[in-house]
Amino acid sequence: MSPKITTELLKQLRQVMKSPRYVQEPVQAYIVPSGDAHQSEYIAPCDCRRAFISGFDGSAGTAIVTEQHAAMWTDGRYFLQAANQMDNNWTLMKMGLKDTPTQEDWLVSVLPEGSKVGVDPFIIPADQWKRMSKVLRSAGHDLVPVKENLIDTIWTDRPQRPCKPLIMLDLSYTGVSWRDKIVALRSKMAERKVLWFVVTALDEVAWLFNLRGSDVEYNPVFFAYAVIGMNTIRLFIDGDRMMDPAVREHLQLDSTLEPEFKIQVMPYGSILTELQAVSAGLSPKEKVWLSDKASYALTEAIPKAYRYLTPYTPICIAKAVKNALETEGMRRAHIKDAVALCELFNWLEKEVPKGTVTEIIAADKAEEFRSQQKDFVELSFATISSTGPNGAIIHYKPVPETNRTLSVNEIYLLDSGAQYKDGTTDVTRTMHFGTPSAYEKECFTYVLKGHIAVSAAIFPNGTKGHLLDSFARSALWDCGLDYLHGTGHGVGSFLNVHEGPCGISYKTFADEPLEAGMIVSDEPGYYEDGSFGIRIENVVLVIPAETKYNFKNRGSLTFEPLTLVPIQTKMIDVSLLTQKECNWVNDYHQKCREVIGAELERQGRREALRWLIRETEPLIKVQ
Amino acid sequence: MSPKITTELLKQLRQVMKSPRYVQEPVQAYIVPSGDAHQSEYIAPCDCRRAFISGFDGSAGTAIVTEQHAAMWTDGRYFLQAANQMDNNWTLMKMGLKDTPTQEDWLVSVLPEGSKVGVDPFIIPADQWKRMSKVLRSAGHDLVPVKENLIDTIWTDRPQRPCKPLIMLDLSYTGVSWRDKIVALRSKMAERKVLWFVVTALDEVAWLFNLRGSDVEYNPVFFAYAVIGMNTIRLFIDGDRMMDPAVREHLQLDSTLEPEFKIQVMPYGSILTELQAVSAGLSPKEKVWLSDKASYALTEAIPKAYRYLTPYTPICIAKAVKNALETEGMRRAHIKDAVALCELFNWLEKEVPKGTVTEIIAADKAEEFRSQQKDFVELSFATISSTGPNGAIIHYKPVPETNRTLSVNEIYLLDSGAQYKDGTTDVTRTMHFGTPSAYEKECFTYVLKGHIAVSAAIFPNGTKGHLLDSFARSALWDCGLDYLHGTGHGVGSFLNVHEGPCGISYKTFADEPLEAGMIVSDEPGYYEDGSFGIRIENVVLVIPAETKYNFKNRGSLTFEPLTLVPIQTKMIDVSLLTQKECNWVNDYHQKCREVIGAELERQGRREALRWLIRETEPLIKVQ
Repeated sequence: MSPKITTELLKQLRQVMKSPRYVQEPVQAYIVPSGDAHQSEYIAPCDCRRAFISGFDGSAGTAIVTEQHAAMWTDGRYFLQAANQMDNNWTLMKMGLKDTPTQEDWLVSVLPEGSKVGVDPFIIPADQWKRMSKVLRSAGHDLVPVKENLIDTIWTDRPQRPCKPLIMLDLSYTGVSWRDKIVALRSKMAERKVLWFVVTALDEVAWLFNLRGSDVEYNPVFFAYAVIGMNTIRLFIDGDRMMDPAVREHLQLDSTLEPEFKIQVMPYGSILTELQAVSAGLSPKEKVWLSDKASYALTEAIPKAYRYLTPYTPICIAKAVKNALETEGMRRAHIKDAVALCELFNWLEKEVPKGTVTEIIAADKAEEFRSQQKDFVELSFATISSTGPNGAIIHYKPVPETNRTLSVNEIYLLDSGAQYKDGTTDVTRTMHFGTPSAYEKECFTYVLKGHIAVSAAIFPNGTKGHLLDSFARSALWDCGLDYLHGTGHGVGSFLNVHEGPCGISYKTFADEPLEAGMIVSDEPGYYEDGSFGIRIENVVLVIPAETKYNFKNRGSLTFEPLTLVPIQTKMIDVSLLTQKECNWVNDYHQKCREVIGAELERQGRREALRWLIRETEPLIKVQ
Repeated sequence: MSPKITTELLKQLRQVMKSPRYVQEPVQAYIVPSGDAHQSEYIAPCDCRRAFISGFDGSAGTAIVTEQHAAMWTDGRYFLQAANQMDNNWTLMKMGLKDTPTQEDWLVSVLPEGSKVGVDPFIIPADQWKRMSKVLRSAGHDLVPVKENLIDTIWTDRPQRPCKPLIMLDLSYTGVSWRDKIVALRSKMAERKVLWFVVTALDEVAWLFNLRGSDVEYNPVFFAYAVIGMNTIRLFIDGDRMMDPAVREHLQLDSTLEPEFKIQVMPYGSILTELQAVSAGLSPKEKVWLSDKASYALTEAIPKAYRYLTPYTPICIAKAVKNALETEGMRRAHIKDAVALCELFNWLEKEVPKGTVTEIIAADKAEEFRSQQKDFVELSFATISSTGPNGAIIHYKPVPETNRTLSVNEIYLLDSGAQYKDGTTDVTRTMHFGTPSAYEKECFTYVLKGHIAVSAAIFPNGTKGHLLDSFARSALWDCGLDYLHGTGHGVGSFLNVHEGPCGISYKTFADEPLEAGMIVSDEPGYYEDGSFGIRIENVVLVIPAETKYNFKNRGSLTFEPLTLVPIQTKMIDVSLLTQKECNWVNDYHQKCREVIGAELERQGRREALRWLIRETEPLIKVQ
């Protein structure tokens, strides 16, 4: 993969940074954050401004361009990818390493006195604005909102904002109607004494109205905002999507409803002026609730005295706890997903030795098998299909320039998932189609021990996920190995594959406590740059646990794997497992055999069934 | 223990809260924080205002008195003690439990509209002021500084502020002269481009000048502030302590020194006006560095634009990493301390069955044995000598009303430590002098497994201590047991037994990464209210570890126990230990036998030596 040549683009950007046509005063630095106006992780092509200016298209990263420098901050998942995709106009700032400066500190160190730092106020989250602005101000600089996005001014062939049809989810999928969700939200608002709630995150809008979209690849969301009052509902959405009779019926737009459930549909672009209008009508005790990660532009539209900001919104928290129907849907989706992967791995086992399967072919084949399953919608993220050294690029996506052929001599890592109408999947398996080396097996086994340590962990009700992160690392740490990413993320229910407010990571502290019904991933790994990558990932459901003493009735929790795909026993050095770990693997494989075996049988997939049975033979630990 | 009757005191306090003599406007609530003007954890009697008004004298807690209510916030260590010491004028707010409101939220819920909340600006840390003030303001209330401490106005027999002689530590103890410490500090100041540094924490002043005091019981500190400029040193200290020729020589007060090392001695009370004078002379780029936990009064003395606040000061961080001489001193102190405890436990074993040993007698005896050791100065905290149900009161201190007799039927928990001129100790052992029940042994063994999991943990350089906290809980969690306190705290070198910036706790996230030379405690526990308490505590030194792959040269760390006191094998259910854990205990006991055995031998303490040898017999695990 050759880096994007950005010399000319940077020159153009530096010109508009001084052009009175776009900026009131010249800005000496311009920040290009990763997200869109909804602080989405996955974004539409029209919002890929950071990738456009730098070439680096990983899911996380912030670019800052000054008159002299261009620098990119990203985390451990993307160090290799970013280094490969950017030309030498760019400096890579490796977040999480001790000597890497923060964006603010770096700006202070390179800017001339009294500089202005520009940013699009719709793209930068308010909490980040506040932090940066404070540091810059104390060093004599100014963070300033630049109304027109400067990247857009130089991006001649920028794509249109998508506006695709909506999908309606009925009660059999969601378990709760949008009306009941509004009622629950209003009761949370009443508890906190707020009169208005602004829904800014795309997955929160989708969840609230039991609608899905396809405006953003992989995330079944659509561009919209909502403003919920105690008696009003305003939905800001563009296009003729509201003309669809099915949508109108779903939202009861033409029914005679109680006024407090009547949805007013408004243009997407009118959110700012509407919010300003709402704010203008407020009296001192009337608050507006929004996420502290909402854009600076929307946050500023509400006078400070009326703002009620929280790190997680009540929708974010309600959405994370799946109800019985959502959980059932997730189970069904994971069974179908496992069927597809059994087919895939069986196929790979036969085809890889022929030397004809590339990473892209394998990824496409995975998608093909998934698409055969009922209620399949699309993939839930770009398939990470990586063999040998590509496996060490943590969020690798095969492209023709890097596309490697799978072989019996290299480890193959497949991290993939899909959106089904009944649930979202995300699973990683690391396989060897020949004979793994002792070192590869050793590393794989440590990762497996970490995976089991989290999956089998028992902990009291109210424990935050970040407290479990070290369990995943302990076996690796004992030998002086580690991995530079978190261990797990929340997973949506036919929604974003990454969602808050819970997860398992050493990097967060403000996560919400885990509770029964939440769904997270468990995915420790180990990466050897230039050689191979290993990761073992299941999606797991938080469930009540039975313990001898039950935490003085506080209650116990543990995890139940929803993912039911065999873990390649060939990669395991059984001598490194404890008997308990060995039993865990055998019990897990027994369950895969029973549940997925029955579905393979039902679908008449005999060959994949034989593969499953072979791959789930119990491990035997020699005492 | 009967609670303090506070009806009359609260009445008086509520009167002065409205008295124009003390407040400009009436305050509807008054906050009584735990600390003194230096945000010390252990405080002098004159500063025990929260204990005076409420009766609750644990080391952590904040009282808030409104016209109608009186409420006390404290953490899990003190739930029982606070409930016992306070009368029913008070509501106990159990911090860390899900439904307990924060102080701010509680105030908002009980105060009439537009209330004033008063607090002594010298006692409240600036970061806390900021947080509370923000929440109160957004709810229409005001946090206001009340210059005269309102508790002092009703505290008729308030003790004088102590002003005891100073102890000088020479290079053989400290390893670094105070001049070199000033030089290192100034270089940190230059790095951050600050011109002034304000030393507000008592242990930081003591460490910086290689002086110790005894103004506060258990913590060898003295009341003082310091303001360090690039060319000036100002020490704010009272009394005739600076008349002592030895102190004058130590600080070279009468030598002809380079001016930048000349110490100006000023009255303790003049810090605020001096700081205001320093601030008045500043130009925009000249910053003053102080802890964000410094008092609101001192922080406000520096105009906002000139403040440079950090959670940990460079002194705090430098102090935490012990140099070779300090480490050697800590080792010596722990050997002496172990000798004293071997004597004690040997004595207890003989005396307890007679039924004549109370908790107080045992505590006194421990102090007696310690005081026989070289360079003993005082205890490092109030001895927790607790038997049976008293053991469940986590920071229990025996007093005549609660004093219980040790017996062969109850568990005895002793958490104690001392200040020696060469180091500070803190050790907890849980013993049974008869036959423990299977349940007691089971709980003890889980706690031991947690203790070992932390002590033997291997982790990469740069790991923060809070990431190790769950290791201590895992074995307890598996059975549905937990404990409501952190697992470890930093320990000073002949300084405070609790110090920052590192520790092992689920409660902090902003701790500094562990590095070789840091010293922390490892003290998991289990408490059964009304029955018993179990805790196993060693002080451990962070040391480099040898690992197979060494984290790609990032370096590996682990812990070495400095505490070398046998862990009672009678309390261990060996069948619950893994072979590795069993080996850890045996290796640890072997080291106790060698190191402490030699010292007991040298001191001619034959009987204690025999006890040590018996108590360090290897465990045998039946396969």
